[in-house]
Amino acid sequence: MRLAKPLAALCFAAAFAAHAGDGRIDYDHQEKWQAAHDMSQSPIDIVTHDAIDAQADEPQTLVFTHTRAPMEAVDNGHAVEVETHSTDATIRGRHFTLTQFHFHAASEHTIDGRHYPLEGHYVFKAQDGRLAVVGVMYEVGRPNAQAQAVLDSLAHRQNAPHEVDIDALLPKPRGYYHYLGSLTTPPLTENVEWYVLPAPVTMSQKQMDAFLAHYRHNNRNVQPRNGRPVVHFRG
Amino acid sequence: MRLAKPLAALCFAAAFAAHAGDGRIDYDHQEKWQAAHDMSQSPIDIVTHDAIDAQADEPQTLVFTHTRAPMEAVDNGHAVEVETHSTDATIRGRHFTLTQFHFHAASEHTIDGRHYPLEGHYVFKAQDGRLAVVGVMYEVGRPNAQAQAVLDSLAHRQNAPHEVDIDALLPKPRGYYHYLGSLTTPPLTENVEWYVLPAPVTMSQKQMDAFLAHYRHNNRNVQPRNGRPVVHFRG
Repeated sequence: MRLAKPLAALCFAAAFAAHAGDGRIDYDHQEKWQAAHDMSQSPIDIVTHDAIDAQADEPQTLVFTHTRAPMEAVDNGHAVEVETHSTDATIRGRHFTLTQFHFHAASEHTIDGRHYPLEGHYVFKAQDGRLAVVGVMYEVGRPNAQAQAVLDSLAHRQNAPHEVDIDALLPKPRGYYHYLGSLTTPPLTENVEWYVLPAPVTMSQKQMDAFLAHYRHNNRNVQPRNGRPVVHFRG
Repeated sequence: MRLAKPLAALCFAAAFAAHAGDGRIDYDHQEKWQAAHDMSQSPIDIVTHDAIDAQADEPQTLVFTHTRAPMEAVDNGHAVEVETHSTDATIRGRHFTLTQFHFHAASEHTIDGRHYPLEGHYVFKAQDGRLAVVGVMYEVGRPNAQAQAVLDSLAHRQNAPHEVDIDALLPKPRGYYHYLGSLTTPPLTENVEWYVLPAPVTMSQKQMDAFLAHYRHNNRNVQPRNGRPVVHFRG
């Protein structure tokens, strides 16, 4: 179902009903208020020369602990997803727990307009409900034993491993591009801190083909940045 | 302008068009996607016995520096607002700068259902665009010289001070209730970390009356919590 243009215009106009003509806010008819939405969506194209350097005087690092953890890989109907819940992260001083990770092909984020064939999203959640997603780019190169562990679990191979070490699925350089965005699948909630690691991780052509045999086009289009800062932490 | 009910239903139904009947996500018609919105709005009623204790092992404090800063108080058409930009805060390890503060009457947040006569919102912004608002409750009691400085600036009194020290507008106990919410005026953007300080700050009856002479009902109704955690840091 698609919003017809006049309907979309009407919904849009309703977003401005909270202000009376004189600029005052109508506190007696709060039920008329609507939010102006969808200004901070993900993914985006990361334009590296537009990124601003992270301030030097606060904790900026991503630190992952208990990276070797039990897992089960599944096809959730729109992505290959790995259920695993034991890995912790300290992200800029705050504690998060890994809730799952999954893969998009091609990459959802682009870096200076370039797609990678595959992007992993490591979805972390904090005590207050804050989501932080670490985005990792994959390309073809040396085989990756942990990518194979995911594929073996997904195929229910005999003797498939029941644990994965995400340390080998993350790049060694932990510099990142950070911005505030959203989930990239419905409900597209804008409560997500993004940390996109630009250093790609390799897997073999055969491993990549195995991922792409499941999904070749489950990437959302890049969204307008709408003036959001992209902060570069060099690691 | 108000959305008629059938129109609201149509907008609502459009929010679910991204999933085909089989649970797959329709990547070929992304223009149909709509976000499910308005699940994390502010203010809320803070139910103290439902709050969860903050984890002990990360930076949890609010630290304010350069609290004495140039200011100008204005009536912005819906609130008394103080323009001041020199105060910094370190909030749970991350750096923010004060962009302004303003007052709502009665308080927008309630604590166990109780309103205070006035609530101050100290709006901080970080390098990545993240907003953090510190909410402070005011009640009648001892006079407050810094509240008087704001009132004098607002009234353009001769010899009105051109600076304010927010340290005396914040309570000495810096424990807080923290949750993820929104702006409380349009566009109601959900990109806001809230830190509500439950210890009230006093001002004289005369000072309170001077604030209330400007606005007596510029508080948004409390919004559904929708399962959001409220984290209590005891300070």
